Amino acid sequence: MRAVDIIQKKRDNNELSETEIEFLLNGYLSGNIPDYQMAAFLMAVYFNNMTKNELLKFTMLMRDSGDTIKFDEINRFLVDKHSTGGVGDKVTVILSPILSALGMGNVKLSGKGLGHTGGTIDKFESIQGFKFSTTKEELVKIANKTGIGLMGYSNKIVPLDKKLYSLRDVTATVPSIPLIASSIMSKKLAIYSDIIILDVKVGDGAFMKNLDQAKKLAERMMEIGKGAGRKIKVVLSNMDEPLGHAIGNGNEIIEAIEFLKGNCADDVKEVVYTIAGLALKEKGEISELCEAYEKIDKVIKNGSALQILAEFIGESGGNKELVNNYDLLPKAKYKMEIFSENAGYIKRIKTEKIGKAAMIIGAGRAKKGDEIDHSAGINIFKKVGEKISKNEKIAEIYYNDDKNINESKDMVLDAFELTKEKIEKPRAVLEIIE
Amino acid sequence: MRAVDIIQKKRDNNELSETEIEFLLNGYLSGNIPDYQMAAFLMAVYFNNMTKNELLKFTMLMRDSGDTIKFDEINRFLVDKHSTGGVGDKVTVILSPILSALGMGNVKLSGKGLGHTGGTIDKFESIQGFKFSTTKEELVKIANKTGIGLMGYSNKIVPLDKKLYSLRDVTATVPSIPLIASSIMSKKLAIYSDIIILDVKVGDGAFMKNLDQAKKLAERMMEIGKGAGRKIKVVLSNMDEPLGHAIGNGNEIIEAIEFLKGNCADDVKEVVYTIAGLALKEKGEISELCEAYEKIDKVIKNGSALQILAEFIGESGGNKELVNNYDLLPKAKYKMEIFSENAGYIKRIKTEKIGKAAMIIGAGRAKKGDEIDHSAGINIFKKVGEKISKNEKIAEIYYNDDKNINESKDMVLDAFELTKEKIEKPRAVLEIIE
Repeated sequence: MRAVDIIQKKRDNNELSETEIEFLLNGYLSGNIPDYQMAAFLMAVYFNNMTKNELLKFTMLMRDSGDTIKFDEINRFLVDKHSTGGVGDKVTVILSPILSALGMGNVKLSGKGLGHTGGTIDKFESIQGFKFSTTKEELVKIANKTGIGLMGYSNKIVPLDKKLYSLRDVTATVPSIPLIASSIMSKKLAIYSDIIILDVKVGDGAFMKNLDQAKKLAERMMEIGKGAGRKIKVVLSNMDEPLGHAIGNGNEIIEAIEFLKGNCADDVKEVVYTIAGLALKEKGEISELCEAYEKIDKVIKNGSALQILAEFIGESGGNKELVNNYDLLPKAKYKMEIFSENAGYIKRIKTEKIGKAAMIIGAGRAKKGDEIDHSAGINIFKKVGEKISKNEKIAEIYYNDDKNINESKDMVLDAFELTKEKIEKPRAVLEIIE
Repeated sequence: MRAVDIIQKKRDNNELSETEIEFLLNGYLSGNIPDYQMAAFLMAVYFNNMTKNELLKFTMLMRDSGDTIKFDEINRFLVDKHSTGGVGDKVTVILSPILSALGMGNVKLSGKGLGHTGGTIDKFESIQGFKFSTTKEELVKIANKTGIGLMGYSNKIVPLDKKLYSLRDVTATVPSIPLIASSIMSKKLAIYSDIIILDVKVGDGAFMKNLDQAKKLAERMMEIGKGAGRKIKVVLSNMDEPLGHAIGNGNEIIEAIEFLKGNCADDVKEVVYTIAGLALKEKGEISELCEAYEKIDKVIKNGSALQILAEFIGESGGNKELVNNYDLLPKAKYKMEIFSENAGYIKRIKTEKIGKAAMIIGAGRAKKGDEIDHSAGINIFKKVGEKISKNEKIAEIYYNDDKNINESKDMVLDAFELTKEKIEKPRAVLEIIE
């Protein structure tokens, strides 16, 4: 068998056999097949896609390139919620304690932010002393106490994805639906859970810019999950405006805590409640999603979800008092208030632009390995569909280094697109695929 | 500027600027852009083609990656005939002395054979003592005496083509029309000539399997040639049977000499006369191709073309007596006669198969660097359209090593496809593009 023949077969849009995919991926992982052959293969996949069989085999081989983890020691219904990445996406911080308060467990590997999108790891690391579990044992210990087990990706989990992603990143083969689907799903399949719930973000601030693309990705991921014998559901959610009000790290932790105190943004609530509802439904506690709302409301009102978050922070090395004292979070030296230069209804908020405006003041990473300033960030006070007057405050920027502050300000101002006509508030959850 | 953005632009089918192509190719040549990025780019080109401007710039940059040669010291109308590669293609050996006898010069770089196709260098190297010119000075000296100047490709001429071709070879990006066109044309443009005549082979034994593909390639090469300000003509010729009767090296030299003695196969004659005619027309000596035949007939009948070939062999280190004494060529130890197992009209001769049958007995190279057995080869005695009886001799195989002889025999037998119906003899020249 020769790699060049496999590339040619894919180039000519013929289905690869399982043996051929195995030869290619294992050869690449071991270094026998060089980057340049894999790069040509990936570009051929970009153009010719992958069949159902190819994609399942490809993903399973990726999963099997490293360790897989099963949490037999955690006696809970385990949910693995994964977001494809957005701006202001603090869902995990809010959802985890809610799921735990509802008697489930949220156990997952979390990622770091890159570019205009944030990452759960960075948000939690705003908390002084907070350390993610680095071993399964640590995770299990904390998860058994709090129902929450979060761990960063390690080189031992799906190392092939890391190798492939680095190559895709420099060969313009990142935005390929089957490659994205296999990258995400290989990591989901490497961790045992009772239900995988994927939050596929759609819109300007997301990787998938339109609903059609997002649906295609969702379908491919469902196909892989089911092919691998796993339970899987997908939520398509709106990223044509930032989720909620805070974009950053420390400020998103505050917004998450406030949510658990009952002060929630509508869009965040819609996404969180939908996902928690899907988990309850899969667990068999409800038969319709609408039945979930009351249950979730309860664990917020009675403070149990907030209490669990506090415990999780405490168990992870942070100060659990933080949920009642935001001064324990790092605070930016400066604040710049942004006022609208015009009046009208907010038609759209350019979400990628807001994400980048936050990134350039230190809240995100332009490239892997960059340091994050956890106290930097942006809060927006107005959302799509709202009416604003001229000179009304629309946002605040928190920063320590004024190097890019004016650029950041201009980006925020530019991101708000106004119109004279009344605009409908958009739905946060666009579609649910079960 | 970043290579990944250029790859992406090509992937998305947007036209690259001259600066971008320059950045990419010069970066690749210098080693700043790695193989894996170029591999992804090449695959994107495979799918998305190149525009006229892109292709011209790409080819010019390839040409300029090494030395270019101008033969001011040769006071003749210079013809550069190039074949895209076929089976039994001894045209250069025959055409060169004819052009010289007609007062022109044939100056070109020649290649070695690979796979089922032969190369002019290998054919001439059948002659004991024969050495190709290795420097321009040697070539000019011999060309001024004989009108023929042949040289092998060196690393100094279009080194980028060598680098790119090696990469294409292992990344399934060889059969891309713009990449083939730029590879051929960069080498043609690196050598000055008054007219470039391309013999694009079409059919089973050629790289271009059908007329449509061949025409596309021809048009792209014409486009480049004209864009570079050069005179260029294309002949599309049939490769749905081997050209002439001999397939190999030493035996092809004999067929070429016999041609110059007036004993010619119809198809070889059609190709040689057409190309020589196109050269005469471009030089201004005739206005219609049909006027060429008499002139060419004359230099064959009066023996001047044969005399020039003999001198060229002598000047190149071989024994010029060879044209009258074939014993001076290496002779294979064994001969196997092949007899038809059926009767009928020859419908088709699987040409690639015949080429491979010759290759596996040593007349060709399975891979670069393989040794050639110059005395090994196949002569076929019957051509498409001819009627044969059962047990009639259709071919002879000449060989020294009997390792693959039975396989070779089976391939030759299998290559001859018979039919009961009378078949038209095919045209050798399918089309002329001026």
